[in-house]
Amino acid sequence: MDVVNRRLIHKYDHETIREVEDLVIKEYPFTILLNGQKLITLLCTPRGLDYLSIGFLLSEGLIQKKEDIISLEIDEEKGIAKIETKKRERISGELTEKRTVTTGACKGTVFYDVMDFFEYQRIDSPLKVHIEDILELVRKFSQASDLFLNTGGVHSTGIAAQKEILLFHEDVGRHNALDKVIGESFMKDMVLKDKMIITSGRISSEMLIKCAKREIPILISRAAPTDLALQLGEKIGMTIIGFARGLRLNIYTEPQRICMK
Amino acid sequence: MDVVNRRLIHKYDHETIREVEDLVIKEYPFTILLNGQKLITLLCTPRGLDYLSIGFLLSEGLIQKKEDIISLEIDEEKGIAKIETKKRERISGELTEKRTVTTGACKGTVFYDVMDFFEYQRIDSPLKVHIEDILELVRKFSQASDLFLNTGGVHSTGIAAQKEILLFHEDVGRHNALDKVIGESFMKDMVLKDKMIITSGRISSEMLIKCAKREIPILISRAAPTDLALQLGEKIGMTIIGFARGLRLNIYTEPQRICMK
Repeated sequence: MDVVNRRLIHKYDHETIREVEDLVIKEYPFTILLNGQKLITLLCTPRGLDYLSIGFLLSEGLIQKKEDIISLEIDEEKGIAKIETKKRERISGELTEKRTVTTGACKGTVFYDVMDFFEYQRIDSPLKVHIEDILELVRKFSQASDLFLNTGGVHSTGIAAQKEILLFHEDVGRHNALDKVIGESFMKDMVLKDKMIITSGRISSEMLIKCAKREIPILISRAAPTDLALQLGEKIGMTIIGFARGLRLNIYTEPQRICMK
Repeated sequence: MDVVNRRLIHKYDHETIREVEDLVIKEYPFTILLNGQKLITLLCTPRGLDYLSIGFLLSEGLIQKKEDIISLEIDEEKGIAKIETKKRERISGELTEKRTVTTGACKGTVFYDVMDFFEYQRIDSPLKVHIEDILELVRKFSQASDLFLNTGGVHSTGIAAQKEILLFHEDVGRHNALDKVIGESFMKDMVLKDKMIITSGRISSEMLIKCAKREIPILISRAAPTDLALQLGEKIGMTIIGFARGLRLNIYTEPQRICMK
C-alpha cells in the first residue's frame, strides 16, 4: 500500500503563490484484534504492519516469546490485524486501571504505569562504542529517512551495531517506528544487548521504557530527552545520547559506554 | 513549579568533550480524577495544569459548557487534578470501546473513533486572513517559544487573531499544548470562530479534531499535515496550512480564507 498521497496544494513562496502537486504522508487507522477482542486502533504508516503489531504487543508486555503467538493475520484493506496468543487475559480491566498517556508521538497508551518501571533490573551490557562511529551511524540514519525527505511528516527509528544500521522503519508516529524495529528484531531473533537504537524523535519516558524492556544498552536521538527519561535511564543503566547531529552529541547518562578514538 | 531541570552532561563538539551544565525539560506525570475516578495520567509540562485539565475534558467531549464543571482542584505536589462535573457517566466502558491511539505527540488516547468525526457539521466562518499577516504571526509565534530555545524539548501552540497571538502554551506533548490553549480560551469565554490555531507540531487527525470541536476555521503548523487530517479538513471546511516558515507556507484545504495583499 502507498504510504503517501499526491495532492494539489497552493504553495506560497516569497510573495508568489502557485498550485502544485505535493506528497502528503498517509495516517492509516490500524486496529489490532487480540484473541478476538479489540485491543487498540493505531494511526500509523501502512508499512511493516506485522512488525508493528508484534512490537506493540511486546512493548505493552502482552507477549514475551515467539511461542506466545499462535497466529498473526493482517488485512491491509480493512486495516486490521488478527492476533491469537496463548495467554488470553481480559484486557479492558488492565487498560482502565493502568492507563497512562504519554508525551510520545503516536500511540500514547501504556498499559503499565510509568513509575512501575523503577522496579526493573539494571541493563547489564559490556558494549562500548566510539563517538566517531555513533556520528557516522547518525549520518547514515539521516540519509536513510527517504520518506521524511519527501513529506516531512514521519519519524524514523533504526537498530544499529557498532558500524551499521541493521533495521530501519519510518512512521507518522515515533512510537510506531520504534515498535516496528522492536517487532522485526524479535521476529528475526536478533540479540539486542549489544545493539543501539537510533531515533529521529524526542526521548520521552515511554520511548525509553520500550527500549529498556528489550534491554537495549544505548539509546541515541537526534532530538532532546526529557528529564523523566533521564531519571529512568540512570536507574536502569541505559546510556542516553541526545542532539546527535553533524559533529555534535550530548551524553546524558552512563557515559562509560562511549569512548573517543 | 520549575519546568526544566539542570543536569551535568558530557557535550561532544568537533572532537572535544566537555562536562557542562545543561537544561532538560521535565516530563511530569499528571493524573486527572474525574468525579473520584481516575480518568487518565498525562505526561506533561507542569504549567497551566488547570487549563490542561479543562482542555482535555473538552477535547474528549466530557464537558460542553462551564456549567458542567462543579469544581476543579489542582495538587501540584502530588500531580493530581480533582474535577467534579454534573454529568457523572462511567468512563471505563467508553474507554475500552472507543479507544483510538493517535499519531499525536503526547497523549494519544481519544475517547471517540477518528471516523466518527465525519458526521460533524461544517465549520461556518467568514474569516479571511492575509498571507503576510500569517507569516508575521508565525514569526512572533516562533520567537515566543522560549522553552524550546532552552531545551529543544517542547511543542508550542497559540491562538491568534488577525494580527496578534492572544494565548500561548508550551508542553512536552503537542496535544497537551493544544489542550492548554483550548482550556484557557474556554475559561476566558473567548470566541474561536474568528481565530486561528498555530502549532509547532505536525497536524494529525486528532490535532485537527480537537480544533474542529472548537470550530476553529484556520489551523496553521510549522510542520507537515497528514493526509487523514486533510481529508477531515476538507469534509468539515477547515483551512489547513503547513510548513509555515520564513516567507513560505503551504495551503492544503479551503484556500478561499487566505488572501494576498
